[in-house]
Amino acid sequence: MRSIWLENNQLSLREVSIDLPPDEALIKVRMSGICATDVELVKGYYPFAGILGHEFVGEVIELGDQIKDQTQWLGKRVVGEINVRCGFCRNCRRGLVNHCENRTVLGIAGRNGVHAEFTTLPLRNLVLVPDSIPDKLAVFTEPIAAACEIFEKAHIKPSERVLVIGAGKFGLLIAQVLRLLGSDLAVVAKHRSQFEILEKLNLPAISAEEISKMDYDVVVEVTASPAGFELARFALRPEGKLILKSTYKGNMELNMSSVVVDELHIIGTRCGPFPPALRLLDMRVVNPLPLIEEVFPLKDGLEAFNKAIQPGTLKVLLKP
Amino acid sequence: MRSIWLENNQLSLREVSIDLPPDEALIKVRMSGICATDVELVKGYYPFAGILGHEFVGEVIELGDQIKDQTQWLGKRVVGEINVRCGFCRNCRRGLVNHCENRTVLGIAGRNGVHAEFTTLPLRNLVLVPDSIPDKLAVFTEPIAAACEIFEKAHIKPSERVLVIGAGKFGLLIAQVLRLLGSDLAVVAKHRSQFEILEKLNLPAISAEEISKMDYDVVVEVTASPAGFELARFALRPEGKLILKSTYKGNMELNMSSVVVDELHIIGTRCGPFPPALRLLDMRVVNPLPLIEEVFPLKDGLEAFNKAIQPGTLKVLLKP
Repeated sequence: MRSIWLENNQLSLREVSIDLPPDEALIKVRMSGICATDVELVKGYYPFAGILGHEFVGEVIELGDQIKDQTQWLGKRVVGEINVRCGFCRNCRRGLVNHCENRTVLGIAGRNGVHAEFTTLPLRNLVLVPDSIPDKLAVFTEPIAAACEIFEKAHIKPSERVLVIGAGKFGLLIAQVLRLLGSDLAVVAKHRSQFEILEKLNLPAISAEEISKMDYDVVVEVTASPAGFELARFALRPEGKLILKSTYKGNMELNMSSVVVDELHIIGTRCGPFPPALRLLDMRVVNPLPLIEEVFPLKDGLEAFNKAIQPGTLKVLLKP
Repeated sequence: MRSIWLENNQLSLREVSIDLPPDEALIKVRMSGICATDVELVKGYYPFAGILGHEFVGEVIELGDQIKDQTQWLGKRVVGEINVRCGFCRNCRRGLVNHCENRTVLGIAGRNGVHAEFTTLPLRNLVLVPDSIPDKLAVFTEPIAAACEIFEKAHIKPSERVLVIGAGKFGLLIAQVLRLLGSDLAVVAKHRSQFEILEKLNLPAISAEEISKMDYDVVVEVTASPAGFELARFALRPEGKLILKSTYKGNMELNMSSVVVDELHIIGTRCGPFPPALRLLDMRVVNPLPLIEEVFPLKDGLEAFNKAIQPGTLKVLLKP
């Protein structure tokens, strides 16, 4: 099958064969999305060789030998949670299955991803997509779930002022999810295009220069840059919550003393639950459509990545 | 009056006069404690000139002109919360009075401290000491309150495994407070003297080498060292709570990515509430007496600081 293959920081369009493990389902990919993490992997953020991609919607077309009887899945449209657990390690036994010590992660670690014609996942990772949610929305389930995870990890109150730093594709999804609490929320924008899309999404925009010191109860940092982190510290009130939603390259210089003196809560959050994300999509209260930059056929996947890699690009989708 | 004066990183025994502000009480210091923060101030951690010291127990002996009618305080034994608020700034109005933007802090910032014969504080900072609590216990109210603050800021469960990194005088108080939840708790010890005092306090000791990766639900870091922080990260499970209880000098190199990937909660905490600390002292469930290294008369205050400054020294007390 056709796939987008990463090896030694080099992307290529490659024909590969696919194996169906006995306890997994074979999924025909209907659409996949290029995430900032994909781009970071190409840049060498983390060593990975294989098929890239973890955001997708697809259709179950075959079942592995051990799960042959689960025929109710056949022909069903699904999205898939990306962490594949072992089920036996200490973290799995603690219920921290997303932190499985032996986990593989779809298109990120130890497991081929979804920028391909087919992919495989265990059934327990799959979630049915209601007919009411078209592919172009469903393909955003994974990042919306990651946005929902903020509410899983932090108690944010409707009365709190929330600042989202980062008006890229992920920041715009996070802001759309967080405002559902009714919070007084703003998104930091820099470029004219960011102000425009925020207006389109009816999300309040603010420039970094307009932000007053200690003016926010909650700050969500999505830029993965030291400058973003600095701005977050500036904007956050004492005893406020600083939500980290992006992975940073390497180490960061941090004044930990000020974290103690200002009694901050710093909360790291990663992957989130798919069912809430699908419900939000189904209710049409989160709108990812304005975030779609372009849809490429899989055969033009390298061109798609060239596009996605440019700063300021929104979501680039692939269609096998 | 006699006082221990800090100026340009130089300590001296100095005769100074004391002014009683019209809205404050004059307090005769009965006993004061040398805190690690005092030692850090001498080392230049933060610019401060004036009388050092913020841990004390004393007796109200005079009232400022505006509070002359509050005679019920006269002759009373008191301890005092160290942050003096303005009451009008944004943080005060938010109820974050310990984060007052115009605050002075007893013996730390903008206000003379307690290593002296007398000190002054507003009445609202004072808390009565029950007769059942002798001076030698009461003088520990401030650091025990700071330990109680961990429970104010973080939800720690009795079923969670807790590691305290740092077996110095503050770590030993924190461990004594945290174990009151019934948690499975251990304190990291290095030197023989630390193992001995932990045994005396009936606190489980563990050496850094014995700690397994990700073995703790909650880690309290009290060493204010990069090595302590590294050990905390190693010991903490995914989605665990990392409580920062010490201020670090300068910036620290931190892998913020791992905070996101492991979905940690980092919680900075500082000063705490005095009444719970006094109740714990009154119940005799926290025992600071084994932490007393030596009691010096105030006139030998420089010698006392020379002692306190040596690594591994426990609590040095001063008696005017």
